[in-house]
Amino acid sequence: MSGFTPDDVFVSYDTSFGQLSLPLSTYRTLHHTVPQHHVDILGSLDTMEEERKSRRFWFMALIMFFSVSCVDAVWPMPQMISTSMDRYTLNPREFIFQYSSGSSAQSGCSLLDSAFKRYFPLIFPDYRAAGPRQPDEWFRFPFTVVVHVEKAECEGYPDADSSESYKLSVCSGQAALRAETVWGALRGLESFSQLVYQDASGEYFVNKTEIEDFPRFQFRGILLDTSRHYLPLPAILKTLDAMSYNKFNVFHWHIVDDPSFPYQSSTFPGLSSKGAFHPSTHVYTQIDVKRVIAHARLRGIRVLAEFDSPGHTQSWGKGQPGLLTPCYKGTVPTGTFGPVNPANPSSYQFMTRLFKEVTSVFPDSYIHLGGDEVDFTCWKSNPDVRGFMLKMGFGTDYTKLESYYMENMVNITKGLKKTAIVWQDVFDYHEKIPVDTVLHIWKGSPSQIQQELSSITLAGYRVILAAPWYINHIAYGQDWTRYYTILPLNFTGTEQQKKLVIGGEVCMWGEYVDATNLSPRLWPRASAAAERLWSDEKMTSSVTDAFPRLVDFRCRLLRRGIQAEPLFVGHCRHEYQGI
Amino acid sequence: MSGFTPDDVFVSYDTSFGQLSLPLSTYRTLHHTVPQHHVDILGSLDTMEEERKSRRFWFMALIMFFSVSCVDAVWPMPQMISTSMDRYTLNPREFIFQYSSGSSAQSGCSLLDSAFKRYFPLIFPDYRAAGPRQPDEWFRFPFTVVVHVEKAECEGYPDADSSESYKLSVCSGQAALRAETVWGALRGLESFSQLVYQDASGEYFVNKTEIEDFPRFQFRGILLDTSRHYLPLPAILKTLDAMSYNKFNVFHWHIVDDPSFPYQSSTFPGLSSKGAFHPSTHVYTQIDVKRVIAHARLRGIRVLAEFDSPGHTQSWGKGQPGLLTPCYKGTVPTGTFGPVNPANPSSYQFMTRLFKEVTSVFPDSYIHLGGDEVDFTCWKSNPDVRGFMLKMGFGTDYTKLESYYMENMVNITKGLKKTAIVWQDVFDYHEKIPVDTVLHIWKGSPSQIQQELSSITLAGYRVILAAPWYINHIAYGQDWTRYYTILPLNFTGTEQQKKLVIGGEVCMWGEYVDATNLSPRLWPRASAAAERLWSDEKMTSSVTDAFPRLVDFRCRLLRRGIQAEPLFVGHCRHEYQGI
Repeated sequence: MSGFTPDDVFVSYDTSFGQLSLPLSTYRTLHHTVPQHHVDILGSLDTMEEERKSRRFWFMALIMFFSVSCVDAVWPMPQMISTSMDRYTLNPREFIFQYSSGSSAQSGCSLLDSAFKRYFPLIFPDYRAAGPRQPDEWFRFPFTVVVHVEKAECEGYPDADSSESYKLSVCSGQAALRAETVWGALRGLESFSQLVYQDASGEYFVNKTEIEDFPRFQFRGILLDTSRHYLPLPAILKTLDAMSYNKFNVFHWHIVDDPSFPYQSSTFPGLSSKGAFHPSTHVYTQIDVKRVIAHARLRGIRVLAEFDSPGHTQSWGKGQPGLLTPCYKGTVPTGTFGPVNPANPSSYQFMTRLFKEVTSVFPDSYIHLGGDEVDFTCWKSNPDVRGFMLKMGFGTDYTKLESYYMENMVNITKGLKKTAIVWQDVFDYHEKIPVDTVLHIWKGSPSQIQQELSSITLAGYRVILAAPWYINHIAYGQDWTRYYTILPLNFTGTEQQKKLVIGGEVCMWGEYVDATNLSPRLWPRASAAAERLWSDEKMTSSVTDAFPRLVDFRCRLLRRGIQAEPLFVGHCRHEYQGI
Repeated sequence: MSGFTPDDVFVSYDTSFGQLSLPLSTYRTLHHTVPQHHVDILGSLDTMEEERKSRRFWFMALIMFFSVSCVDAVWPMPQMISTSMDRYTLNPREFIFQYSSGSSAQSGCSLLDSAFKRYFPLIFPDYRAAGPRQPDEWFRFPFTVVVHVEKAECEGYPDADSSESYKLSVCSGQAALRAETVWGALRGLESFSQLVYQDASGEYFVNKTEIEDFPRFQFRGILLDTSRHYLPLPAILKTLDAMSYNKFNVFHWHIVDDPSFPYQSSTFPGLSSKGAFHPSTHVYTQIDVKRVIAHARLRGIRVLAEFDSPGHTQSWGKGQPGLLTPCYKGTVPTGTFGPVNPANPSSYQFMTRLFKEVTSVFPDSYIHLGGDEVDFTCWKSNPDVRGFMLKMGFGTDYTKLESYYMENMVNITKGLKKTAIVWQDVFDYHEKIPVDTVLHIWKGSPSQIQQELSSITLAGYRVILAAPWYINHIAYGQDWTRYYTILPLNFTGTEQQKKLVIGGEVCMWGEYVDATNLSPRLWPRASAAAERLWSDEKMTSSVTDAFPRLVDFRCRLLRRGIQAEPLFVGHCRHEYQGI
C-alpha cells in the first residue's frame, strides 16, 4: 500500500472494469519507462497444500500489483503510446465519428460506417439511447473522432500484405485517427475504444494520448477446429468479435478432419450429408460460410480455410467412395480406409473440383492444405499403392509418395491462384514445393522448434509459428504466462531469415472443446499471444507489468459479452451474468 | 462396427442426446452383467506430438464405445436396475403425475407439486404446450406417474438423516414411484426423467424398467467459493439445478474468506459493506440467501454454510475493527493483521452474535466452522496474545491456542443447537471437540489421506472426504477418470470405522473460477464423483463402461441448459447455443 515517492502523481483510474488507484506520470512514453525485468510467475502447483499456502502470497501480490503497477489501457500494447493526466469528459449524446475532408474513405464506406455503429456501444457500454437530443444541445460542440484513410478498400478483404498501422491523437474535443488503410483505421478505433473509461458514477473519460502503432507480425491467427466438435455459428462469430478486440487478424478455420465434415459443399453435397455429425444440424451451409467471412471482413480478419489431406480425412470417405485408400491384410481388404489414395488419378480430379469450389468461396489469397501426420501403414498394405510406388520409382520410401501427393495439391491450388500454407511435415519430407509456400510449425520441443525455424527460413520459406500456442492444452494456475513469454525470433538465423517468420497462431484443437467451454478457455489466455504477436518485445517483456493490464483488459472483454475467465482472485465491476 | 453375436438384441437407442446403436439384453440386471474390468484411460499427455498421434486411437476408441457398450440411462447408476426391450410411447399431452391414494403426501404438497411442474419439461424437452386437448383425447388413458410417499415433509428441509431411497416400476401406462420421504421421491423423479428418451423423429419412449435405489453415502456435497470470486445468484441456482440432476444433496457454501465478505449480515452490516468486493453489486442479501435455500430445498439439497475462522478472515477485519490480531514487528504494530484475535473476549462475543444470526438464517442442523490453515506468525508477534498464552499455561505451543479458539467456536454453535463440521486441521491439533463434530479431509497424498481416515474414524469421529475431489485443479485430457476411480473406504479400519465416513465433497475453490467458467469446469467432471458417492462401487468400477454413459448424461445436462463441457470428440443432438 505504500512505497511511492511524493513525486508520483496519482490518477484515480476508476474504469467500469475494475477499481484501480494508479500512479501515472505525466506524458510517460512507454519506450523509456517500462521496466525490463521479468518475473516468471506461477507454473502449476504440485500439491493442494502448496496451493492453499500460496493463496495468501498471491492475494498480497495482487494487492501489490494494483497498488504499484501502471495500468496502460490498450491491449495489446501499442508500439508507441504517451498518455497524460489531462482527461476529458465524454458524453455519449455529444459524441460523433466523422471522416476527415481529405480522407479517401467517406460516408458510405460500408466497412467504416458499420465499425462506427459497432464501436459506439463498446465505447459507452452503459448508454441507452434516450430519445432525441434537446434543442439547446445542438449548439454544443460534440467530441469528434475524425478518421482519415489514405486508401479506401471499403468493399475489399484484408489480405496478407494489408497495412494495419495507424496514428491516434486524442486531445480536447477531438481524436484524430489516421491510417493508410481501412484495416489500420479499424485497429485505431479499437485502441481508442480501450482508452475510454468510467468513474464510479459511470461518467466517461478519455485522457490526452498519442499513439503510433503497427503490428510486429503480419500474421496473427486463431485456429478453431470444427470437426472434432461442431461449433454453432454464434460461437464462431463471437470468437471473431473477441479476436478484433485483441487485434488478431486471421481466423484459421480447420473446418474438416477425421471425425466430421461439416462444410456443405455445393459440388459434393454428399461430403457433409454423409460425413457431418448430422446432415442438417451439424453443417456449415454456404450461407453460414458467407456470414462468417462477412463478419470477419468487417473486423479486418482474414478467413483462412484448411482442408487437410491426405491424412485426417476419414470423414471425407463417407461421402466420397473411392477417395480413401482401402487398407489390406495380406491380399484381403480389411474394410477400413487410410489416407487419400495418391495412386488413383481420380483423387486429384476430385481435389481439383473441390478446391475450385473452396477457393471461390473463400476470398483470401491463401489456402491451408494441411499435409500433417500421414500414417503410411495403410498405403503400404495396399497393392495398387505399392504398384504405383514401383512405377514411380519411389522404392519403399513412402515420404516420396506423400511428397508427390502434396506437390500435386500445391500445384492444383496454385493453378487456382492461391498460395498454399502447409504444416511443417511437408518441409520435413523435403518436398518440392514452390518457394512462396508457407510452412506452419506445430510440433517439437523448444529447441526442436528453434531448429525448425532456422532450417525452414534458411531454405527461404516463410513460416508461421503455432507450436508454442497450443492453447487447448490447459494447466492449473496462471498458464497465460507461458504464452506471453514466447520469443518467436529466438533462433539462429540472419536478419533476412527472421523476416521470413510472418507470424504466429493460437490453436484451439477440438478434442475437449466445444461451444460450452470455448470462450473461457480461449480468453484471456489467447490475449497473451495477441500481445506477443502485435507489440514490441522489449516493451512487453515483463509478466509482472502485463498482469494488471491483462486483468483490466479481461474485465473489458467481459463487459463486451466475451465469457473470458478470470486470471486470479478478484472482481470486475460488471461480472458475467449469463449462465 | 462388428463383434456382436447373433444372439445380441439391438435396440435403436436414439435419444435426443446422441445417436447410439446398442445391444440391450432383455431384462438385464446390472448386478450380474456389468463387467468388472478397469481400464485406466488417459492421463495428461506429455507432448503435442503424442497427443496428435493419440487422436486416431481415441477416435477409434470412441467408435468402439458407441458400438459395443451398453448405455444405461440413469446417472448415477441406481443400486439395482433391470430394463427390458419392451418400450412404451409417451405422449406429453397424455401424461400426468398423480399421488397414490395411500400416499401421505397429496395434492397441495408444495415440494412435490413443484417437482412435477419442473420435471414435465425436463422429460419432454421439445414439447411446447399446444392449446387445450381435443375432446376425444379426454377419453384416452394417460401415462401416469403414481407417487407414493410414506412420510410427508412437504414444507420441511432435507437433513443429515433424511432417507433418499425409492423404488420405481415402469410398465405399460404407468410408472409407480414409492419412497419413504419426499426426498426419496425427488430422487426417483430424477431417475424416471432420465429413463425417457427420444427417437430421431422426436417421439418419446420409456422402457419397462424396475429400479430399487438408495445412496451409498449420505453426504454428497459440492463446495462453491464465493469469496475469491463473487458468483452472481443465477450461477449458484444453476449449479443447484445440475446438482439435483446428479443427486448431489449438500451445497457447501464457502461464502466468505480472505478476499471478500459478500454475506450481508443484518447484525453486522459493515462486514459486507466494507469487506465485499463491492457493497451493493457483490453481496448476498438476506433475500438472496433465502432464495438459494428455497431453491435448494425444492431439490432436496441442504445448504451448509461455512464461516471459516480464525484464519481466512482478512476481509472480516475491514468491517469489524478489533476482531483480527494486530501483527507486530518488535514492539511496533505493522499495520497488518493476522487471524481472529483469540486472546480478546470480544472476539467470542462477536462470534456468538454473528453465529446466532447465521444459524437462524441457515436452517440446516450443521454449520461449517472452517479452522484450517492458521498461520501462527502474527499471533506470536503480538504481546497481548503472548500474554494470554502465558496466562493460559499454553507455553509456546500455539496449536493449544488454536485448539482453545476452535473449542470455543464449537461450543458457541453447540449452544445454538448446531453440529459443527471443521476441516481436518482441528483434529490434527488434537483439540477437545465434541464427538459428534464432523471432520473434513482436504489435504494430503493418497496414503496420507488413508492414514487420516483411519485416525479420525478410530477416534470415533465422523468424516467427509474432499481431498481427492478438488475439482478446481484442471489437467489436459479426460481427468474425470481420476475422480471416478477414488475408493473412499480403501483404508485400514473396522466396519464400524468405515461407517463413520459419511460421504464426500467436490470442492471448486475460486482462485481461477467465476461465473464465466464455473459450469464447464464443474460438469460433467463432478458427475464422476456423483456416481462414486451414490452408486454401488462394484457395479461402477469400470471407467470404460462409465464413459459412454457419461457421454450420454452430459448431452442430457446440455439439453437441460447446463453448460457441461465435452468429454471427448463427438456431438450432442442439441449443442450448446448460448455464447
